[in-house]
Amino acid sequence: MANSSKRVTAAVLIIGNEILSGRTQDTNLAYLAKKLNEYGIQIREARVVPDIEGEIVDAINALRARFDYVFTTGGIGPTHDDITAECIAKAFGVPLVINDEIAEILRRRPSPPEIMEARMRMARIPEGGGLIRNPFGPHGFYIDNVYVMAGIPRVMQAMIDALQGQLRRGETIQSRSVTAYLSEGQIAKRLGDIQAGYPHIDLGSYPFYRSDRYGTILVMRGSVEADLDIMLEQVKQMIVDFGETPADIERG
Amino acid sequence: MANSSKRVTAAVLIIGNEILSGRTQDTNLAYLAKKLNEYGIQIREARVVPDIEGEIVDAINALRARFDYVFTTGGIGPTHDDITAECIAKAFGVPLVINDEIAEILRRRPSPPEIMEARMRMARIPEGGGLIRNPFGPHGFYIDNVYVMAGIPRVMQAMIDALQGQLRRGETIQSRSVTAYLSEGQIAKRLGDIQAGYPHIDLGSYPFYRSDRYGTILVMRGSVEADLDIMLEQVKQMIVDFGETPADIERG
Repeated sequence: MANSSKRVTAAVLIIGNEILSGRTQDTNLAYLAKKLNEYGIQIREARVVPDIEGEIVDAINALRARFDYVFTTGGIGPTHDDITAECIAKAFGVPLVINDEIAEILRRRPSPPEIMEARMRMARIPEGGGLIRNPFGPHGFYIDNVYVMAGIPRVMQAMIDALQGQLRRGETIQSRSVTAYLSEGQIAKRLGDIQAGYPHIDLGSYPFYRSDRYGTILVMRGSVEADLDIMLEQVKQMIVDFGETPADIERG
Repeated sequence: MANSSKRVTAAVLIIGNEILSGRTQDTNLAYLAKKLNEYGIQIREARVVPDIEGEIVDAINALRARFDYVFTTGGIGPTHDDITAECIAKAFGVPLVINDEIAEILRRRPSPPEIMEARMRMARIPEGGGLIRNPFGPHGFYIDNVYVMAGIPRVMQAMIDALQGQLRRGETIQSRSVTAYLSEGQIAKRLGDIQAGYPHIDLGSYPFYRSDRYGTILVMRGSVEADLDIMLEQVKQMIVDFGETPADIERG
């Protein structure tokens, strides 16, 4: 899986104690993975870090150097535990400044001074950054290759929708999958041989147990559709050769 | 959140292309977080990496140096894409060796030579490592402070159950939570003041929108129950002061 020039890569940084404590089940990573693949961007790493400045700064700097994009979720509200904007500014070595566009949007909803002061925290973004628009409420921001979004799924989803067409587009990865009611041990050698013939396709093998039967889901992922179809035929033939019928074939 | 001597820390390393592609929704992290807290261990970071040797080796070495424990999930089956054991061995600079105990268990189920050869891949663990027993099937292993488990949730769960009592025990974190039908902007200042009085308690604020109402769940997490109860009373009083009724109070 060499990083060809056609592949645009991303990391996701999930910020929040509530994910690490198990209180909240993250669903943003899986959503982002599918959505970003539609945009021609592949997630190559994800990290979850607590609401601690040093941890967030270090993770941002490690990831933004290695991947084309970094997408963060969480920590952009008005309360004391929302420290993402400060951390991104520190990571880039720039000050936080009031973004006039966000400030104007926040001022449109009148509030008593104390509440307005808290809400105006959300107008501060790192110097040199820009706005991620969100028609449904709070806004995100970006600076260089780092895109900073909310943690609440429906708000994050509105923000990633707003980014459509604004990001560099690479290959989209297609997939084929087929279920074999065979154990991984039975098919391991044949599967390895098939994989060896197509190093640019990822052939994944995911065992399961359901309705009292053991089986394995075989998933092929790559950008060359013709090769995916040839590999799918080889995998189907393998299943037939072991005396079973290929099931649940999916193309995506 | 200083790392006191009573706190035992862990990182989780989730290994698998299927998580990064969004094909599979990870649930192991949330499960492990709750279970490890019962064991007196706190997860401080999680990473998801693809089935690529260099990525896995680097992540293992970064995490095992920083945390008391590392728990990995995924990549321990018999197929070509199961490379976790090799990667852990490389990270520790030791060879893979046949573990006699695992080999004996695998030999108990008779198989044709080709299948047995594939299954025996699962008996190879890094030299110096030991077995994580699992009554329901495949086994995991550990070496030093790294614990290597399956990706399939029910198998992983059996493995982490098997580790009960074998890990160093630190503080268990308790929590209190209460719902306020108030916006984060309204309560931000008061909440910051309450947090400032108890730096050893994490006071988290999680906004939501449901049944047509906006609200915020306030979560307190710490190891001193008496302080948690005092903070809970302060947060409840704040909600009352803003004209609302504290709802859905939970202790955990």
